[in-house]
Amino acid sequence: MLILAALLAAATPAQPAPSPQEIVDSAPATDWPAIPVDDLLIMDLAPDAAGHARRVVIQLLPAPFSQGWIGNIRKLAAAHWWDGTAINRVQDNYVVQWGDPNEDDPKTAKALPAGLAVVPEREYVARKVTAPAGLNRETGERYYAGGLRVGFDDYGLTQFWHGWPIGLSSDPSINLNWPVHCYGMVGVGRNLPPDTGSGAELYAVIGTPPRQLDRNIALVGRVIEGMEYLSSLPRGHGPMGFYQTAPERTPIRAIHLASELPTGDQPRFQYLDTESATFARYADARANRRDPFYIRAAGGVDICNVPVPIRRAP
Amino acid sequence: MLILAALLAAATPAQPAPSPQEIVDSAPATDWPAIPVDDLLIMDLAPDAAGHARRVVIQLLPAPFSQGWIGNIRKLAAAHWWDGTAINRVQDNYVVQWGDPNEDDPKTAKALPAGLAVVPEREYVARKVTAPAGLNRETGERYYAGGLRVGFDDYGLTQFWHGWPIGLSSDPSINLNWPVHCYGMVGVGRNLPPDTGSGAELYAVIGTPPRQLDRNIALVGRVIEGMEYLSSLPRGHGPMGFYQTAPERTPIRAIHLASELPTGDQPRFQYLDTESATFARYADARANRRDPFYIRAAGGVDICNVPVPIRRAP
Repeated sequence: MLILAALLAAATPAQPAPSPQEIVDSAPATDWPAIPVDDLLIMDLAPDAAGHARRVVIQLLPAPFSQGWIGNIRKLAAAHWWDGTAINRVQDNYVVQWGDPNEDDPKTAKALPAGLAVVPEREYVARKVTAPAGLNRETGERYYAGGLRVGFDDYGLTQFWHGWPIGLSSDPSINLNWPVHCYGMVGVGRNLPPDTGSGAELYAVIGTPPRQLDRNIALVGRVIEGMEYLSSLPRGHGPMGFYQTAPERTPIRAIHLASELPTGDQPRFQYLDTESATFARYADARANRRDPFYIRAAGGVDICNVPVPIRRAP
Repeated sequence: MLILAALLAAATPAQPAPSPQEIVDSAPATDWPAIPVDDLLIMDLAPDAAGHARRVVIQLLPAPFSQGWIGNIRKLAAAHWWDGTAINRVQDNYVVQWGDPNEDDPKTAKALPAGLAVVPEREYVARKVTAPAGLNRETGERYYAGGLRVGFDDYGLTQFWHGWPIGLSSDPSINLNWPVHCYGMVGVGRNLPPDTGSGAELYAVIGTPPRQLDRNIALVGRVIEGMEYLSSLPRGHGPMGFYQTAPERTPIRAIHLASELPTGDQPRFQYLDTESATFARYADARANRRDPFYIRAAGGVDICNVPVPIRRAP
């Protein structure tokens, strides 16, 4: 993603440019679609040492992405299967992972509810659902206000779609999309065979975007509140960051669907419409910081460094 | 960074390819240069709640990068100026920052030692010190074994240099390099004017690489051990992640130069030579995972997702 300096210079006023956050704060209410409550999972961890509650809210990906696993996750949450499980792995600069700590021991593993789907690996990608406005497939470039081009990065072609960062094939005849591994994205742990992840074992990204996992493992959502309760957990010292003793694990009190809560208690979130003019200005400002602290604009940005703004409904 | 699939296919044996870690583990001893003890800073945090020691080791950048600030940092460490200061800011997916918690209050701010340099902003970049072997400046491509091209990413041209990730101008007449903001890199906090950072206020990156900061703020080194003691700290809830109360801060017992320790107590580290054939294979494997877990190779990688392997001297 490079910048057309000439275009930008023409659009830049003499006074200091607004910061990305100032641009977001200026968005009209119509730029903030609601996130469906039905797509929210709520994870309550055991309180911290000081007795403070730790609630993590996860937004599940919309169709057509990862729907086989997401169907399983809805069943597991409805069955309160995760209640009493734990966070078992924290690998620095990589992932936090949770589920049944005994899953590898047939004698003590927690039985999964009946009726979970075995999801084939072809579901790591999905049929393309949208033609991104303004995208030039040949060059991989998409022009936003101010000249920001969103397109090819080191891992291929990327775009924003309904508030999500996704990858797409540069070959139009392949016509596939997939979600990408940015900070806070949530995915499904699996063993070596690609169809072994049920959705009972989940992870969240807590470091440098591990884009090598794209299309190799199923992403199912992202943390939209309470990320810090995952990212600040003590790191594990076993292989791959697994905790070596049970007391190191953080107990999960409950994971449930937000739709189970009484209507008045259901959390209401909104995201900044990634097709809006405000988002285009925001993405451009992330690539070309011209607010007073900055002395040199980067002239580019990768998709994971343009986090989609999400807020509680005002 | 894209991959030449044909080249790679020819080089790939029928059996499963080794993982990046397996490649690193196979490196001969000659691929592991020593990190000079003189370039190490040791930060001892107060013990954690369970009484465990928390030691962070930082490697300072070699010349010609950021030497004005690094000179100041050596003076501050020699004066034990940081002893009794604290970690004051932890912003999720961004930075941990430490120094004098009262620095903004002229009445209570800790006096800096005499003789610190005021470093001009032109030192955010340095004269180019090396012509990277195999780099094609016109295309930004550098070929490693197996076809991995390391070159242009979303932020410009990048390369590895003596074990460090650095950026370089794509215009040979500009002939400048700069270190880049990957996970664990350490930099100098400053106020709005670019020459206001003395080196007394330092930060470390704990999330998505904030590459917009490249050339806008001085990088001076990286955490090479104990990163988890910074990345797992509770996040602050004031503006920009500053803690709002003194008890939230993590006290710094001492920051000193490793060279102050008795010779036998000095930590000895090595890095994987970024000019070695082993590193080229490692970088290629990071871009093209073909070890058994993976079903699709990404075909590319960004420089921050190729962390330079560092180990204790065996």
